[in-house]
Amino acid sequence: MTLWDRRFAKRRSDPRLDAFLSSIHEDRFLWPAEIGASRAYAGALRRAGEHARIRAGLATVKARIEGGEDLGRFEDIHSAVELMLTEEIGEAGKKLHTGRSRNEQVVVDERLFLKTEVPRLVRLLRECQRTVVRLAERHPGVIMPAYTHLQPAQCVLFSHYVMSAFWPLERAKSRLLDALERIDVLPLGVGALAGSTVPIDRKALAKSLGFAGVSQNSMDTVSDRGFILETLFVLALLLLDLSRIAEDLVVFSSREFGYLVLDDAVATSSSLMPQKKNPDVYELIRAAAGRLFGQVAHLYVTAKGLPSTYNKDLQDDKVPLRQGIEEAARVLEVFRIALSKIRPDRRAMAKKIEPALFATDLADYLARRGVPFREAHGAVAEVVRVSEERRKPIDRWTASELRKFHPRIGEDAKAVFSADHSIGLKRTSGSTHPDQVKAQVKEAKRLIASRGWKRRAAFVSRTSVR
Amino acid sequence: MTLWDRRFAKRRSDPRLDAFLSSIHEDRFLWPAEIGASRAYAGALRRAGEHARIRAGLATVKARIEGGEDLGRFEDIHSAVELMLTEEIGEAGKKLHTGRSRNEQVVVDERLFLKTEVPRLVRLLRECQRTVVRLAERHPGVIMPAYTHLQPAQCVLFSHYVMSAFWPLERAKSRLLDALERIDVLPLGVGALAGSTVPIDRKALAKSLGFAGVSQNSMDTVSDRGFILETLFVLALLLLDLSRIAEDLVVFSSREFGYLVLDDAVATSSSLMPQKKNPDVYELIRAAAGRLFGQVAHLYVTAKGLPSTYNKDLQDDKVPLRQGIEEAARVLEVFRIALSKIRPDRRAMAKKIEPALFATDLADYLARRGVPFREAHGAVAEVVRVSEERRKPIDRWTASELRKFHPRIGEDAKAVFSADHSIGLKRTSGSTHPDQVKAQVKEAKRLIASRGWKRRAAFVSRTSVR
Amino acid sequence: MTLWDRRFAKRRSDPRLDAFLSSIHEDRFLWPAEIGASRAYAGALRRAGEHARIRAGLATVKARIEGGEDLGRFEDIHSAVELMLTEEIGEAGKKLHTGRSRNEQVVVDERLFLKTEVPRLVRLLRECQRTVVRLAERHPGVIMPAYTHLQPAQCVLFSHYVMSAFWPLERAKSRLLDALERIDVLPLGVGALAGSTVPIDRKALAKSLGFAGVSQNSMDTVSDRGFILETLFVLALLLLDLSRIAEDLVVFSSREFGYLVLDDAVATSSSLMPQKKNPDVYELIRAAAGRLFGQVAHLYVTAKGLPSTYNKDLQDDKVPLRQGIEEAARVLEVFRIALSKIRPDRRAMAKKIEPALFATDLADYLARRGVPFREAHGAVAEVVRVSEERRKPIDRWTASELRKFHPRIGEDAKAVFSADHSIGLKRTSGSTHPDQVKAQVKEAKRLIASRGWKRRAAFVSRTSVR
Amino acid sequence: MTLWDRRFAKRRSDPRLDAFLSSIHEDRFLWPAEIGASRAYAGALRRAGEHARIRAGLATVKARIEGGEDLGRFEDIHSAVELMLTEEIGEAGKKLHTGRSRNEQVVVDERLFLKTEVPRLVRLLRECQRTVVRLAERHPGVIMPAYTHLQPAQCVLFSHYVMSAFWPLERAKSRLLDALERIDVLPLGVGALAGSTVPIDRKALAKSLGFAGVSQNSMDTVSDRGFILETLFVLALLLLDLSRIAEDLVVFSSREFGYLVLDDAVATSSSLMPQKKNPDVYELIRAAAGRLFGQVAHLYVTAKGLPSTYNKDLQDDKVPLRQGIEEAARVLEVFRIALSKIRPDRRAMAKKIEPALFATDLADYLARRGVPFREAHGAVAEVVRVSEERRKPIDRWTASELRKFHPRIGEDAKAVFSADHSIGLKRTSGSTHPDQVKAQVKEAKRLIASRGWKRRAAFVSRTSVR
Repeated sequence: MTLWDRRFAKRRSDPRLDAFLSSIHEDRFLWPAEIGASRAYAGALRRAGEHARIRAGLATVKARIEGGEDLGRFEDIHSAVELMLTEEIGEAGKKLHTGRSRNEQVVVDERLFLKTEVPRLVRLLRECQRTVVRLAERHPGVIMPAYTHLQPAQCVLFSHYVMSAFWPLERAKSRLLDALERIDVLPLGVGALAGSTVPIDRKALAKSLGFAGVSQNSMDTVSDRGFILETLFVLALLLLDLSRIAEDLVVFSSREFGYLVLDDAVATSSSLMPQKKNPDVYELIRAAAGRLFGQVAHLYVTAKGLPSTYNKDLQDDKVPLRQGIEEAARVLEVFRIALSKIRPDRRAMAKKIEPALFATDLADYLARRGVPFREAHGAVAEVVRVSEERRKPIDRWTASELRKFHPRIGEDAKAVFSADHSIGLKRTSGSTHPDQVKAQVKEAKRLIASRGWKRRAAFVSRTSVR
Repeated sequence: MTLWDRRFAKRRSDPRLDAFLSSIHEDRFLWPAEIGASRAYAGALRRAGEHARIRAGLATVKARIEGGEDLGRFEDIHSAVELMLTEEIGEAGKKLHTGRSRNEQVVVDERLFLKTEVPRLVRLLRECQRTVVRLAERHPGVIMPAYTHLQPAQCVLFSHYVMSAFWPLERAKSRLLDALERIDVLPLGVGALAGSTVPIDRKALAKSLGFAGVSQNSMDTVSDRGFILETLFVLALLLLDLSRIAEDLVVFSSREFGYLVLDDAVATSSSLMPQKKNPDVYELIRAAAGRLFGQVAHLYVTAKGLPSTYNKDLQDDKVPLRQGIEEAARVLEVFRIALSKIRPDRRAMAKKIEPALFATDLADYLARRGVPFREAHGAVAEVVRVSEERRKPIDRWTASELRKFHPRIGEDAKAVFSADHSIGLKRTSGSTHPDQVKAQVKEAKRLIASRGWKRRAAFVSRTSVR
Repeated sequence: MTLWDRRFAKRRSDPRLDAFLSSIHEDRFLWPAEIGASRAYAGALRRAGEHARIRAGLATVKARIEGGEDLGRFEDIHSAVELMLTEEIGEAGKKLHTGRSRNEQVVVDERLFLKTEVPRLVRLLRECQRTVVRLAERHPGVIMPAYTHLQPAQCVLFSHYVMSAFWPLERAKSRLLDALERIDVLPLGVGALAGSTVPIDRKALAKSLGFAGVSQNSMDTVSDRGFILETLFVLALLLLDLSRIAEDLVVFSSREFGYLVLDDAVATSSSLMPQKKNPDVYELIRAAAGRLFGQVAHLYVTAKGLPSTYNKDLQDDKVPLRQGIEEAARVLEVFRIALSKIRPDRRAMAKKIEPALFATDLADYLARRGVPFREAHGAVAEVVRVSEERRKPIDRWTASELRKFHPRIGEDAKAVFSADHSIGLKRTSGSTHPDQVKAQVKEAKRLIASRGWKRRAAFVSRTSVR
Repeated sequence: MTLWDRRFAKRRSDPRLDAFLSSIHEDRFLWPAEIGASRAYAGALRRAGEHARIRAGLATVKARIEGGEDLGRFEDIHSAVELMLTEEIGEAGKKLHTGRSRNEQVVVDERLFLKTEVPRLVRLLRECQRTVVRLAERHPGVIMPAYTHLQPAQCVLFSHYVMSAFWPLERAKSRLLDALERIDVLPLGVGALAGSTVPIDRKALAKSLGFAGVSQNSMDTVSDRGFILETLFVLALLLLDLSRIAEDLVVFSSREFGYLVLDDAVATSSSLMPQKKNPDVYELIRAAAGRLFGQVAHLYVTAKGLPSTYNKDLQDDKVPLRQGIEEAARVLEVFRIALSKIRPDRRAMAKKIEPALFATDLADYLARRGVPFREAHGAVAEVVRVSEERRKPIDRWTASELRKFHPRIGEDAKAVFSADHSIGLKRTSGSTHPDQVKAQVKEAKRLIASRGWKRRAAFVSRTSVR
């Protein structure tokens, strides 16, 4: 069933072609937006009597769809709503499409969908942030080795490491809210590409649908899918950040590292090996970046090289849009739960804090005594090398032995071989010093509580769609 | 319901985590392979009595799944089949997993799936090739302008252009059959990663499942997903080729080119603009490359940087595998139908054959008369430029006027201004000369009829899966 | 020559490994940032005497690099500057690295680089916008057919089409400026990952380097490459938009459309076919999306699944960063020049305005007379279909003949068959109506002149790097 | 300097456009192929006298290019060779282009380049394989824990793990050789798109250039870039496999695992932390997948949606082609060196072999005694869980204590708690059993020595290019 039957002498008879062209299974999820936008558009047509009937009719259509009516017989969600409306209210339904094109309907629906979903994602991000902060606060004094190149580097507070997961979430929030500003633009009223002959007051229509502004060029309006790609890529970036944290969690949960107690809740075992306890949840979080990047690649390739305005290829933006948003939301929810189950093994961490981790502190000690850092670094590097060759931990040398490596090493040098001392020496903002971590947590809480983002997100989600 | 309940003190209680970890909705499609492989594996366990009961039990399980039983309560398709089997035959079912790991089950299922699907794709390719040849033969004498840079270049036979779609299909066939050799390797019998303690005769098992060979290293066997990526990329390459042909069809169906009569079967109209007739089918074929490339990107990113053997991330290979194969098959089927509807507009083509298309022929004429080609090219370029400036088609100059551009231009030069003449002059193999196109069609038919590929494809699909 | 020679007993002797590990050829371009950041860092170390010597030394190093000194003997740009500085000023140079790690140096350099380059890209975007507006204003009354699905849809002003290129540029500007806020964060002072033992005042350092803020978590600071990926993706989105416009230009420059006079400046000919004139510049602009997407894919894949903090893999971010920025800048410059050469062929456009383009206007006419739009659409669709069958343009029917298709068609209906009339009827904001296009141009000029972006861009580029 | 100056009234005057259009900096690397193909083409023109002069001229041109002559003044490598040849031999040089188009020249050059490079890559793969085998043979009795999900799974021979790197290399070889068959097709003789008017004997020309066959459709011949994409993707798959092995090496070199002694040759230290020893070489190998995938994505996006035959966009295939091949070769060489430096730490491995690794063996023991595997698995899972709760290694239970978990556990059960025993029990082909590993090594050596691939690779590389 289509909206343009009378154009062709014969109807397409091949059901495989019909199935290929139909998008109803892919765009069905846009129905709330389609109904919301149709209701607002009916208002904009300014025909009081019909408007009331259309509103009532749309309410019935909405109920039918919510009731699970099979829409498979329609070409797409736009036809579905219009034709069902006509079934309900006859003639008046046929007027709804006056001056309106599917080229604009599809993007108004997509934008309304994102105006609901992006704020939801922001809320999920905020919940993850809350869980991060809670985890950081739960274990204030725990110290762990930190790594670069997966080799032990320096000691940090476990809570400092945990807080490193807060900021990617904050950046994702900020990117989503920026993207939202470009989403939050009304396309309706541009017709097929040239504008509408019906004197729609687009600013009033924008207001009634909760859009912050109206698009400025009708041809650009029906061409542009950048707002979808931008949103999906922001989510792909977020999941890339989560793939990093998930990799940490997998490594830290390994028997060899042993820093995290693998909670049964996030693990599974093996169908063959009875002893196995696998961090499946972390692994699937690590994997999710692939899904989002795949959606971005899909839509990017599809859109590449198309001429201006609407081309049928763009129909293929629905799957990446819906699946990308769903997947990101699903992963955020699971990430939050997984975080809440994390228990550090304080003792295992302590056991892995070896003296070599304080080598930089020894070099810094020399630098504080006026030795050029490069020279200090070289001397300590030699201490480390000789210690390794002799299989002697570097804190086992006496001060006078150490002095052979550099004359400025004093009796007090050996104080550097302590994790608390090492962490206490870190003095810059953003460092792992307990005071700095406290400040960091405070700032994080301020950002979570901040009304700023809520105002921005709330504004754009104040739509009349549902 | 899982296979490893007794490992953990408490069961995971969060249904969101259960849903996140479960893959049954994504790997359900592998059930025929799972049952086929299980049946063969039971045989390999060489316990005659139980084997018969397991076969019978699996037949019942198969019937239950075919009957549409909801498998949502199981973790994945492997657990589903094993646990349903145990429901059917009790104790004996519990023995099926002896020495077998899901790490190997998943890849044997995927390989069996591809051993069925790849030959199906090859058959679809061959059907497309048949349609291409039929289309080429249907319009033997039709001449059209051909383009480079979307600018008119030289005349070709329409059938020559059509045949240019044959060879990408042939390459896709050849790539798929090559990929099939790497797919066609039995993984079963490698256990979780170290091999099996059960003395499975893997070669016999391979034979019973129709595999050409067995894998050689158990750790590599459970790590490798290259066979899926290779297959998906071959399909992505095929759809890239189809995006080129679809772009041609869209352009040639435009009113301005007008070379193809847009059949109602492949077109739709507009909900707003009553005159519209849009080549939607061609556009969606052009779009499909995005989908396949997206699947490739998804799986590539997911697999990147994982350590050896099985990691849960690999569970995420099911969606690209299934969707990629389905999408390619769907597009091939539609492409074939779309090809069968193509009707060239001979007159429209003829009208666009302007004399400038024969400029190269004029230069070749001079070259045949011993003028260095570069000099001939320059002289003709000047004819074209001056003709443009004076708005005079280049075939309106008299021979003696032309001689002013180059003294070697004789009275017979003007014979070059003919499409038939131009095409007739092409002499190399693979060219648009009618004889060459005939030879090309003959070779194409030989390739279609060739048993070679059938033997290769048939061999690998001779599995006992269904 | 490295900064850590004394750590190892023997030096790496394989030059192939040295070459593989060295990044100097890839990060050399960051030298201005490296010197600027080093100068500021020396200031932050607060040792007055040395500071002056370091500044002087860095000035000499700068001169040496600007003079083209081969840096191939160094491991990377950070070692190069430090070691050259030590060559210049001895001991004091060795102090520069106190408390500073290459993990933070590399990101401060990259951020400083982007703080210079992003505003440059914004300026290039603004110049393109100026050229777009100029082109739109140069041809006020020219009318052309516009297309959906590459099929004629409705008439628009040429200037309206041109202005459709303005808004993607505006969105790119806005996205870049948003990205800049996330770039504009000082990483320096976080040490290798835990913070610095040197009491650096990071806020003061940020001020002296022109950063708006400081990073909040040292581990996150050395892990994050999202600011590069975000910037590259914004550029990839921009080039995707340009691929659309370039595709239009290629199509409109084809002989069959003929809407644009292909200027010799943007065309090349063929080495074989003397008549050819190819829109090479437009084609290469269309191609550029591939380059940027490739850079995004490269860095995304590389970063996926890495654990936290610095891993050597991240060294590979330099090539995408530099090449991505360069390529985008190069394309923007050429795009601007190409736009400035565009000349519409008014007559060719007029010739292609066929009556069927006004079919929607006829339906709208009926709708204005109270006919439900869907009914009006159906009636006109039938007019079109019958006209096609009888090969009779739809404006050749008399009003009374038309009335047979719908009784509400009056004598005045035939007024719709006029391009001026059609465009004049468009009434919504953002439409092709001449008044609306004027308003659009006015708004565009306001945006170009707006100081807002300049203030934002200027702020972040007010660095002391050079 | 171009080949088509006389076509346009005025020359392009904007140097930025010239630079944008020029490809000489990107296609210069193809010069050996260009000269080889030109020489062969001259032969095919069958004009004896000129042929000798052209050969001589090309030899001089070759010498000039080898001598480092700056080619920057030419548009591309094809113009460069033709124009330099004309500088050398005058008139005769101008004849070389007779009937030849750059559209075919570019692909013949690319195919010739790959016909040299692919066999080189195959040789590099073989050298890597040799190093793998040597490493496996050097440490025959070393046993290590193997992992799934980065959790200890079962014991394997170190040499078995090493051999798991052999097979991806073998698959890469096989894929490259398959790709080579599609590369090994002569495009020359197809003209711009329609074929050539010069009666070139393409089969003879193919023979003289060492091609196995000739292309069959002139339009397809100048359109197709699938052979480049296929080759690049095969390399991307190879580097994906290497990213897995490199990840293993990074993890196994970590202090916590400690299975590999990190050789100074593949490590670097830190500019800040004197104790650091980082596995930089492994990390960069892991990173390389990103580069290759980026090149694939670049070319795929660029080619998507282009119409048939040559479009200038295709000029952009040079960078992915050259960089992709170079990068893969570079990584293979380094990978081989890195492998040769690997030293397992036998003692560290032994220390990590904990009794829980034999849990499967205990279950298998029960299965061998007729207990259904699923039941055996459950019983052992409980042993593991209770052992964990009581912090008692599972081999510390007496046989009779174990019997409480399952009555079939006999006195001999405790024999399973031995690594040698465990490995010795693996019985399937491809397993870690010492005999199987020996068989595996033997098969590997056979494949390395096999002349089959050499014949295939040798055949295609027997070109007359250099």
